Amino acid sequence: MTLADEIREQPAVLAGLLERAPAIERIAAAVRARDVDHVVIAARGTSDHAAIYAQYLFGVRLGLPVGLATPSVVSLYGVEPRYRRALVMGISQSGASPDIVGVVAAARRQGAPTIALTNDPSSPLAAAAEHVVDMGAGPERAIAATKTYTAELLGLAILAAAWASPEGALAGDPALADVPAGVAAGLATEPAVAGVAAALGARNACVVVGRGFEYATAREWALKLKELAHVVADPYSAADFRHGPVALVDAGFPVLALAPSGRAAGDLEALLLRLRDELGADVVVVSDRDDLLALAGRPIRLVPGLPEHLAPIANIVPGQLYALHATRARGLDPDAPRHIAKVTRTS
Amino acid sequence: MTLADEIREQPAVLAGLLERAPAIERIAAAVRARDVDHVVIAARGTSDHAAIYAQYLFGVRLGLPVGLATPSVVSLYGVEPRYRRALVMGISQSGASPDIVGVVAAARRQGAPTIALTNDPSSPLAAAAEHVVDMGAGPERAIAATKTYTAELLGLAILAAAWASPEGALAGDPALADVPAGVAAGLATEPAVAGVAAALGARNACVVVGRGFEYATAREWALKLKELAHVVADPYSAADFRHGPVALVDAGFPVLALAPSGRAAGDLEALLLRLRDELGADVVVVSDRDDLLALAGRPIRLVPGLPEHLAPIANIVPGQLYALHATRARGLDPDAPRHIAKVTRTS
Repeated sequence: MTLADEIREQPAVLAGLLERAPAIERIAAAVRARDVDHVVIAARGTSDHAAIYAQYLFGVRLGLPVGLATPSVVSLYGVEPRYRRALVMGISQSGASPDIVGVVAAARRQGAPTIALTNDPSSPLAAAAEHVVDMGAGPERAIAATKTYTAELLGLAILAAAWASPEGALAGDPALADVPAGVAAGLATEPAVAGVAAALGARNACVVVGRGFEYATAREWALKLKELAHVVADPYSAADFRHGPVALVDAGFPVLALAPSGRAAGDLEALLLRLRDELGADVVVVSDRDDLLALAGRPIRLVPGLPEHLAPIANIVPGQLYALHATRARGLDPDAPRHIAKVTRTS
Repeated sequence: MTLADEIREQPAVLAGLLERAPAIERIAAAVRARDVDHVVIAARGTSDHAAIYAQYLFGVRLGLPVGLATPSVVSLYGVEPRYRRALVMGISQSGASPDIVGVVAAARRQGAPTIALTNDPSSPLAAAAEHVVDMGAGPERAIAATKTYTAELLGLAILAAAWASPEGALAGDPALADVPAGVAAGLATEPAVAGVAAALGARNACVVVGRGFEYATAREWALKLKELAHVVADPYSAADFRHGPVALVDAGFPVLALAPSGRAAGDLEALLLRLRDELGADVVVVSDRDDLLALAGRPIRLVPGLPEHLAPIANIVPGQLYALHATRARGLDPDAPRHIAKVTRTS
């Protein structure tokens, strides 16, 4: 299995995960019965971007504050924060990183409900947590995570839907069933994406912007560009981008923007107008909206479909394909990224 | 007042803030009396880096989980997360950004204790919060925040010390009194810093790494480089850096590393050895430790002094000076950064 294979396998992986919804619904019922006031998520790398998605998902759909854990507080400084009335989740493809395990184990010792979201149900993380969501994505052989990222997002979306709706995840959020088809539609952007990636292939730096639910997508897209294509890709929320980093942009500087339909679109539109009219940036826009695509020198058209809270699962796919093609355009091998290992164990 | 003036003014500003400790102690006493299980902080830009410092500070010193708010959940999606048993803080120099005000106002309506940490006690943020910490840094005229960043950090450190210690902040954490002198010692790095910044001035991209308490410093140093010198500076925790971004580093790639004494130093040492021996990076090390400075092609020596939890207040100073001198080396004006305004109002 190559990286390209794993990107293309995603609709099937996600369809398989939907079939596991009953197991996630049982976990949601157990958590719903507890006195949970907030959620703490421990994760690193790609899984940290799934945690960012959860901040918006659980915030908007469940009204719960979600904080990203600082695992070093436990692993480096030896302090166990009190997790009273918290749900503590660890998200990790491998389930092997000691510092993520450490946060979940501390919370479980304190009696807080804990969930491991992992691709390895026999991992130390799974053993540490009270509940395990096995994403069942099959072995991920490529060093850069792709199918396990979208599986993490869908696992979180099923959990949030089941938590909100005792009748079941799909009863509460019927659009979940459309996710595999939405991701398949994302794969269909490949010819357009490949053209843009080849045209911008020589550029060593860029900015990636999104807002709200798509901030997670911006972060993950940028990470793929760094680890595979060696492009210094700086991800920003469109809201934070104005606080300084916009100074990076001069005429011709590449800006990759996620601007799908939804509540964040107005803010992206304002930014895109400024990037085009004042700053003269070289702008790529990923969107299903004609008016926003028209603001881009390099548009990548999405098929409308998923609601805003599920769209990030499909909208990272053009980003994965972009990183794949940018890597090839730069003469690099996407299946042999330099310096990095599949499993990173941080203590 | 120029940017350089405001950087040099910091010891005096911080000494003035220490004199305001009694007001902060009264707020700490009020918050201590409440049933606080976790802390939520809303902030953007430089103030978001103060919030990251608070994650480590309140985690390690108070055993409290600290989450960074996603203000868009309130401002864009119209949902108010429940803030039961949370302390909700807004951190903003100007106190003017509607989305930060929105989070604090929502929490106060729900009856949660709220604190505004701001340089403008007549701002909307101050009006929204139950308690106000006025950092009293005086007007900050430069667009890039410097003295208000270190004042935010010290304000948080006084609050944490007073919260932990009913006898008073300085009784609980006597090293607070050493902060102004520590920052003055940071200013004394300027000749060494200026030399390194001039030598690396032509480089358009770099990575900045720290871990634990100094992760906040890495983020803030990178932001100054972006907004002032237009260097694409990518900040990472040394822990997350292994998860992919290390792929960016080839021979001669600049890596700026914060490696002062403390619990995080061992992890930085391992990374510095790898950067030198395997990757051949062009490494700047900011440290008070001879053994770690010896791993750098470009060492910047700190005077030992502040304990690890207060050191970030002084350790950003070489970063501020580096950004100032890199900006000049690149022929840019540090007092006229392009595209950005002092006060950013995000709705």
